Amino acid sequence: MSQRVANVARHLTTSAKKGVCLVVGAGDATGGAIARRFAKEGYTTAVVRRNKEPLEDLVKQIQIAGGNAVAFACDARKEEQVVDLVQKIEKDLGPIEIAVHNIGANMNFPITETTTRKYTKIWEMAALTAFHMGREVARVMTPRKQGTIIITGATASLRGGSGFAAFAGAKHAKRALAQAMARELGPKGIHVAHTIIDGPIETNFVRDIWGEDNFKNLQDNGGLLLPDEIAKVYLDIHNQHPSAWTFELDLRPYCEKW
Amino acid sequence: MSQRVANVARHLTTSAKKGVCLVVGAGDATGGAIARRFAKEGYTTAVVRRNKEPLEDLVKQIQIAGGNAVAFACDARKEEQVVDLVQKIEKDLGPIEIAVHNIGANMNFPITETTTRKYTKIWEMAALTAFHMGREVARVMTPRKQGTIIITGATASLRGGSGFAAFAGAKHAKRALAQAMARELGPKGIHVAHTIIDGPIETNFVRDIWGEDNFKNLQDNGGLLLPDEIAKVYLDIHNQHPSAWTFELDLRPYCEKW
Amino acid sequence: MSQRVANVARHLTTSAKKGVCLVVGAGDATGGAIARRFAKEGYTTAVVRRNKEPLEDLVKQIQIAGGNAVAFACDARKEEQVVDLVQKIEKDLGPIEIAVHNIGANMNFPITETTTRKYTKIWEMAALTAFHMGREVARVMTPRKQGTIIITGATASLRGGSGFAAFAGAKHAKRALAQAMARELGPKGIHVAHTIIDGPIETNFVRDIWGEDNFKNLQDNGGLLLPDEIAKVYLDIHNQHPSAWTFELDLRPYCEKW
Amino acid sequence: MSQRVANVARHLTTSAKKGVCLVVGAGDATGGAIARRFAKEGYTTAVVRRNKEPLEDLVKQIQIAGGNAVAFACDARKEEQVVDLVQKIEKDLGPIEIAVHNIGANMNFPITETTTRKYTKIWEMAALTAFHMGREVARVMTPRKQGTIIITGATASLRGGSGFAAFAGAKHAKRALAQAMARELGPKGIHVAHTIIDGPIETNFVRDIWGEDNFKNLQDNGGLLLPDEIAKVYLDIHNQHPSAWTFELDLRPYCEKW
Repeated sequence: MSQRVANVARHLTTSAKKGVCLVVGAGDATGGAIARRFAKEGYTTAVVRRNKEPLEDLVKQIQIAGGNAVAFACDARKEEQVVDLVQKIEKDLGPIEIAVHNIGANMNFPITETTTRKYTKIWEMAALTAFHMGREVARVMTPRKQGTIIITGATASLRGGSGFAAFAGAKHAKRALAQAMARELGPKGIHVAHTIIDGPIETNFVRDIWGEDNFKNLQDNGGLLLPDEIAKVYLDIHNQHPSAWTFELDLRPYCEKW
Repeated sequence: MSQRVANVARHLTTSAKKGVCLVVGAGDATGGAIARRFAKEGYTTAVVRRNKEPLEDLVKQIQIAGGNAVAFACDARKEEQVVDLVQKIEKDLGPIEIAVHNIGANMNFPITETTTRKYTKIWEMAALTAFHMGREVARVMTPRKQGTIIITGATASLRGGSGFAAFAGAKHAKRALAQAMARELGPKGIHVAHTIIDGPIETNFVRDIWGEDNFKNLQDNGGLLLPDEIAKVYLDIHNQHPSAWTFELDLRPYCEKW
Repeated sequence: MSQRVANVARHLTTSAKKGVCLVVGAGDATGGAIARRFAKEGYTTAVVRRNKEPLEDLVKQIQIAGGNAVAFACDARKEEQVVDLVQKIEKDLGPIEIAVHNIGANMNFPITETTTRKYTKIWEMAALTAFHMGREVARVMTPRKQGTIIITGATASLRGGSGFAAFAGAKHAKRALAQAMARELGPKGIHVAHTIIDGPIETNFVRDIWGEDNFKNLQDNGGLLLPDEIAKVYLDIHNQHPSAWTFELDLRPYCEKW
Repeated sequence: MSQRVANVARHLTTSAKKGVCLVVGAGDATGGAIARRFAKEGYTTAVVRRNKEPLEDLVKQIQIAGGNAVAFACDARKEEQVVDLVQKIEKDLGPIEIAVHNIGANMNFPITETTTRKYTKIWEMAALTAFHMGREVARVMTPRKQGTIIITGATASLRGGSGFAAFAGAKHAKRALAQAMARELGPKGIHVAHTIIDGPIETNFVRDIWGEDNFKNLQDNGGLLLPDEIAKVYLDIHNQHPSAWTFELDLRPYCEKW
């Protein structure tokens, strides 16, 4: 193994004491599952959403299972809040080893009914927050020549469906961000990846949108992505060796039409 | 021909008196060439950029050549200015038959040096302005069941290159917008198209960036896209029959590496 | 204009006497429409399919309309037949200025019911014939530093739908061929383009597959691509200036879902 | 968990005794590493290439490490040989749980120097062999409602570079095959995946092509994909839960330009 690869590998190994796993957008089932999984692997997990309260249960779950978790309130649309967040985590919890961005805002409106306020907000929620997280985390990871950044995408990252000008626009922008970071930061030892989640996830959000009966039906027929299984794939990505890094992969239930 | 197609076709034919061609971002060589070309075909051209002054020459050129052109100042990032612009044009000049969005903001920064202000501004310039134009134009075109909307894209619409988080993000968002509009508005008789301009255009902007010698060299070797030829393709797109509409096409000089 | 571009442009201009338009796969409505259109523009059209007989009507139509057309029988899967065809045309009719490949073989089978014979035949019909045409035409065009090659693709060129292992495989291969040729031959002055036909065409083939009622319904609602309009776009592509060449564009009826 | 998912999951669990891992194209470093890895996990590995002899070392390595491996000679371009192979393995070694297709044929020729023989052979080697393996394996997996099929792709699966008409054509066809199978077989409980290997692998083949010095340089700078790390990712794919299956992922060394 070359010196350079060895360095990268050494970093990954010595970090066996395990650093911090940051999950921005830990409010839903997926973000929560990712936090639980990385906590189980020994990472100190920093779980973040706009309001702290809904994170209390998650933190308790992780602690009861013997893991470390700390909740942070942060409106990631605000630059200075993200700057503060990352500095605070690095100072109080240790070096961020993996950062996951998991905020979306799936909405559908006819183009003529899409207000400028909605169009802007959806971009801010999905893309601007990812940019803030990505940039701030890149700043601390770059000198250490290691770290993993995973950005959660969706079908709308690749396709602008009718009514999805705002949502797909934001998701496309997020994917471009992830690609640009992967190309720039990869050679600096930082693994940036983007996932395409193609299907409904087993969450309350999906239950509300699809209705109880449809949701039950999807559940019974394996039509839902299970958050714990998504989390396992994120761990697989993080554990890839620098000689074989994935930038993008899709995930869907086995019976999903695509 | 079916009644429905006949209706669409009839619209296209009766508009033979030719309506208005709106060019948002008429400041550069490409926007100017598009305006000149559609003016030559008999369209009244409404040329738009943030400040009116630089448009005076263009308007004069078009008028001397026997065409109609009117300049408008409009900061297309401002919702109300675009609302006013479209209403004013429809009232004073006639129905908008074709609208072209031609604003970009090609910039490259390492991710850690990309300020939130720049990231936001580039998105506002490329994507938000396209959203405003697209939505307002869709509002007047939809009841008439006709019209063409062409959104100018670039290589960065498809690829997030290193250093292009902001620019590629905005261009990706613009493409998603165009796709979503095409899928929604196509069945309503409105042709939405997106072009991928893949190569340097013969403009002063490119001359400044590449330097005089490189520019000359590109010119001598056919390495530049000629604005008049791009304009011709935009006219081809507008003239496509509703039974065979293109959503996306790429354009590059014959010797461009890709 | 540079010397090099001037050369290319000159070629295009002096060929104003118009050379030959070769259409391989002229048996269906689309190939026929392309031949008629280029004949109308003054090109001598060489129309080709496996058996000559079905081409007689097409040739007569073109001749009655005042154009030149000659029919050739050629099994384009056979290397030597294509070599002979191109040599014969160049000798008897003049230089091939544009060559269109328009052979497909849309078929759907479950993977376990796809015989090796079918899988191979569909590839031979769609991809091998395009390779033969492309290579032989490139051989005569390259020394002249001019010419256009258009390869007809489909939705299956981009997507491997369930049951389309053979058809999509062949169409994907054809697209890769077109791309490789475009990248190699573009800088040599030859314009290679690929079209994505995304929707049913107004042909007897589609009428048979969809049934008379569905077909009528599609016709009445503008749901069919009209061959004459596809042909017009092929002419637009051929008439593009070397400074702004399209490699790929999609074509679909205005109300097609995609 | 639903009955249907439970069934799939049960299959995956009861197969804990581990079935057979079939590697078609086990001649190179990657195929060998995949075989070693799955053998280490307890799978009986069936390693296949045209001639058995070069497989002897691989089989010995696996056996010394305590694993099971059997070598088979099979020209996968021949339908009947693949039919026989799959039947023999199923009868003698047990049910095929995972099948990997790993045959490529990376070659570059100008289009006019690409013979029909080469064009056809490269397609037969990369695409026809994958079709044969995929179809025969699907036949035995479908009734069992389980199994994984992984098809190895490359950059050329997505891009037709200059000079790659034959290779990219074959790789594109292979990808279309994988997609079509994934869409058809996924709902039947069979996981079909496609990998995009984007970069040089640490193999003798690459060493010969790049030359000793360049190869050494790549090795020292982490510029090579390590076969063992590719193999680990294939195992990750196989171990994904049916609620979160990946169809496609890319793999490249951390410092690869893309």
